[in-house]
Amino acid sequence: MLGAMADARAFQDDYPDDVAHCYGCGRLNGKGLRVRSFWDGDETVCRFVPAPHHTALPGFVYGGLIASLIDCHATGSAAAAGARADGRPVGSYRYVTAAIKVDYVAPTPLGPPLELRGTIREVKGRKVVVAVSVRANGIETARGEVVAVRLP
Amino acid sequence: MLGAMADARAFQDDYPDDVAHCYGCGRLNGKGLRVRSFWDGDETVCRFVPAPHHTALPGFVYGGLIASLIDCHATGSAAAAGARADGRPVGSYRYVTAAIKVDYVAPTPLGPPLELRGTIREVKGRKVVVAVSVRANGIETARGEVVAVRLP
Repeated sequence: MLGAMADARAFQDDYPDDVAHCYGCGRLNGKGLRVRSFWDGDETVCRFVPAPHHTALPGFVYGGLIASLIDCHATGSAAAAGARADGRPVGSYRYVTAAIKVDYVAPTPLGPPLELRGTIREVKGRKVVVAVSVRANGIETARGEVVAVRLP
Repeated sequence: MLGAMADARAFQDDYPDDVAHCYGCGRLNGKGLRVRSFWDGDETVCRFVPAPHHTALPGFVYGGLIASLIDCHATGSAAAAGARADGRPVGSYRYVTAAIKVDYVAPTPLGPPLELRGTIREVKGRKVVVAVSVRANGIETARGEVVAVRLP
């Protein structure tokens, strides 16, 4: 499935132009990370290949990058989940992060693509809670949880 | 005090070369953020000016950048606190992040310098817990806590 993502339409592709400049996921930010997220059944998935300079200790991925990927994949997942719950198109809502926590359970090797999988824990009013698992070479290296809040 | 920081020696200036490539704080990472941290009494302080592309919604700082600054300021603070507790020089130890959480309590305006202040909550064995407050224009916009673990 991951190979097909480059051609598919990501949640972030449907963000309105005025909220599409985020460094992490904005398609209109020329210097950003351009996180792109998709449904895969009831989970959400994102694939990202860190750059060589995204290093922590040599050979491993910088934890701040991992937190950033979790952050934007989760807010994208929240937008998709909130819209799905209301039977509306993905671009209908934009969420921002109220809180994030990340546990780094193993060093993340720098080189292979990272796969982030999001699970929607809660959709309630303007709030969506998303759990995210990060894997490299099929091994989980970080677990995150994001509380996302819908913009008015 | 902040004006004097450019000339002062930061904790990160004393990291050994083989662990000084971090994207967030490594002085040997030519594309990184170069977070620099200092003692200010029993607190630690870091000043950082986000770039225009470090945006979330237009006009506000990207939350993933804020998490990254908290992360590296906290691990630097942990290195300094661990070394101080043992009566050793700052560069004696290097810490990595085991867990981070960040609460975004207000939108962070993009433009003014950010000031991060670290409080050492606990130094126990190989673990240091650091709380970090982020302010812009003197107003707190984010609160973080990092569990840092000393590398063997």
